[in-house]
Amino acid sequence: MGSEVKTTPRAAPRKLTGKKQEIDEFIDQFEYFLFDCDGVLWQGDVLLPKVVETLDMLRNKGKKLVFVTNNSSKSREAYSKKFAKFGIPVSVDEVFGSSYSTAVAISRVYRMPPGKRVFVIGEEGVEHELAAEGIPFFGGSAPLPFPDDEVAEHVGPDPSVWAVVTGLDRKISYAKLAMAGGYLRDPDVHFFATNTDSTFPTHGKLLPGAGTCSAPLILMTGRTPTSFGKPSLAMMESIERKYSLDRSKACMVGDRLNTDIKFGLKSGLKGTLAVLTGVSTEAEILEAGEAGEGPDVYLDCLGDLLG
Amino acid sequence: MGSEVKTTPRAAPRKLTGKKQEIDEFIDQFEYFLFDCDGVLWQGDVLLPKVVETLDMLRNKGKKLVFVTNNSSKSREAYSKKFAKFGIPVSVDEVFGSSYSTAVAISRVYRMPPGKRVFVIGEEGVEHELAAEGIPFFGGSAPLPFPDDEVAEHVGPDPSVWAVVTGLDRKISYAKLAMAGGYLRDPDVHFFATNTDSTFPTHGKLLPGAGTCSAPLILMTGRTPTSFGKPSLAMMESIERKYSLDRSKACMVGDRLNTDIKFGLKSGLKGTLAVLTGVSTEAEILEAGEAGEGPDVYLDCLGDLLG
Repeated sequence: MGSEVKTTPRAAPRKLTGKKQEIDEFIDQFEYFLFDCDGVLWQGDVLLPKVVETLDMLRNKGKKLVFVTNNSSKSREAYSKKFAKFGIPVSVDEVFGSSYSTAVAISRVYRMPPGKRVFVIGEEGVEHELAAEGIPFFGGSAPLPFPDDEVAEHVGPDPSVWAVVTGLDRKISYAKLAMAGGYLRDPDVHFFATNTDSTFPTHGKLLPGAGTCSAPLILMTGRTPTSFGKPSLAMMESIERKYSLDRSKACMVGDRLNTDIKFGLKSGLKGTLAVLTGVSTEAEILEAGEAGEGPDVYLDCLGDLLG
Repeated sequence: MGSEVKTTPRAAPRKLTGKKQEIDEFIDQFEYFLFDCDGVLWQGDVLLPKVVETLDMLRNKGKKLVFVTNNSSKSREAYSKKFAKFGIPVSVDEVFGSSYSTAVAISRVYRMPPGKRVFVIGEEGVEHELAAEGIPFFGGSAPLPFPDDEVAEHVGPDPSVWAVVTGLDRKISYAKLAMAGGYLRDPDVHFFATNTDSTFPTHGKLLPGAGTCSAPLILMTGRTPTSFGKPSLAMMESIERKYSLDRSKACMVGDRLNTDIKFGLKSGLKGTLAVLTGVSTEAEILEAGEAGEGPDVYLDCLGDLLG
């Protein structure tokens, strides 16, 4: 299993110029490109310029592409349909989402025992991936089987519950939190999060992220969830296993310092590339660079990789 | 304004025996008794034994009583009706709740300018106390004026919003959190919490407390609310002002180490008394004592003060 790699003093983040030679030298270092999606390839429902051509160029150079998203609300299948809608040919197997990462960890790493089940705070993405791995679950998008204001009568430990999984849940409710809190009082019940993003960029606004669905439970129980999204090493380990990826030949491309770039750095990937079409600004990137937490290089937008 | 009082090395928490002389000596030190309610006087809807008689005994000795509750969901008026239902004569003016404390701070300490308003995540208690202080507000128990799934279109700064107030809101929703998060991106908008209790004991269960309604916003914005409930000194300062209370003659009585007893200790009250009818256990009280964070004395239940 990979462990966290200590960062040595690093050069300041460098903005790649449009010079073909400089860009080719950068690209040629890598065999794998891991892409964050929202804020890198598109913004909400709007495809960013020259993304299709850039991905084509990388494929033509023989690079392997993996699309790594913390978005827990969509399954990999739903996500690959989003690519198709944008005219980007991406197979389900090239998509690596935090819900998938979580489901795979439960079934293949933790090996949840038979007869147990998972309580879900989350949406279709979590439900779909759990079902695909054959993991029994309840909660999620299904209404609780009692009126919300009777929740106190139902809160309590449940020996059939093996884990609570939290992802982004835009139908979050007091009753769901109360039930989850009750299960988590049993220290043997696992506390998992697809990801702990503080915000969820949507239509240019920063809406509450999946982390806001676990934060109340962290406060209630004093426990911290194991996260299977960026920047968690658990996600990198799953990616490594699935794609036989060599970290020394991989580059993480993203728009967020505290998830994407941090993920690339703490995983010890060969390279990190930030783009300015998402959450983190150039000033923040340069400031992070001073703390040794910036990307190797950055670009105004991904399309600039075309030169 | 009172400031935090450093604790000097303190004796271990002492269990008061039933000896009349020892009890009288303890009581005679104080002019004021500040009571937490749930877990001390009652448990949910069940009055604890000999509470009425104990409060009578204290009143007969000339003690002044203040009932200090973090429960933000009820107004002082609604709370005094709860006392009446239990046959305990308590005036509205003897009740000091975290919603009242918050409303008074906004109108009389911060002096919110005219033309501004407050966005509420909370219930009737917060709404009632804000209205009683003449503070314009929106949100709260009123449905948002748009469908929840259209919230992204409505999130953003609003120059009319002067503060976000969070209390316990058992109708908490993603849309309310999204709106509050949008307002709080303006650093000039105040972030207030009636209290930040992690749990809300109900029918013997630990349901999510008011703190679970601010925790998502803390994560989203990186900001910390000013709390007007126990153990915040802001609450003690309001109590001091309202009752002309002398801290060196006051005793805090409560069931929770991390709110009630901490409140008494950090406020530098003369004494602290814990009871075992609520959240904290005897073992926790003794352990806290070793860290200098325990009460001076403790009892199995409040009625034991009768000897």
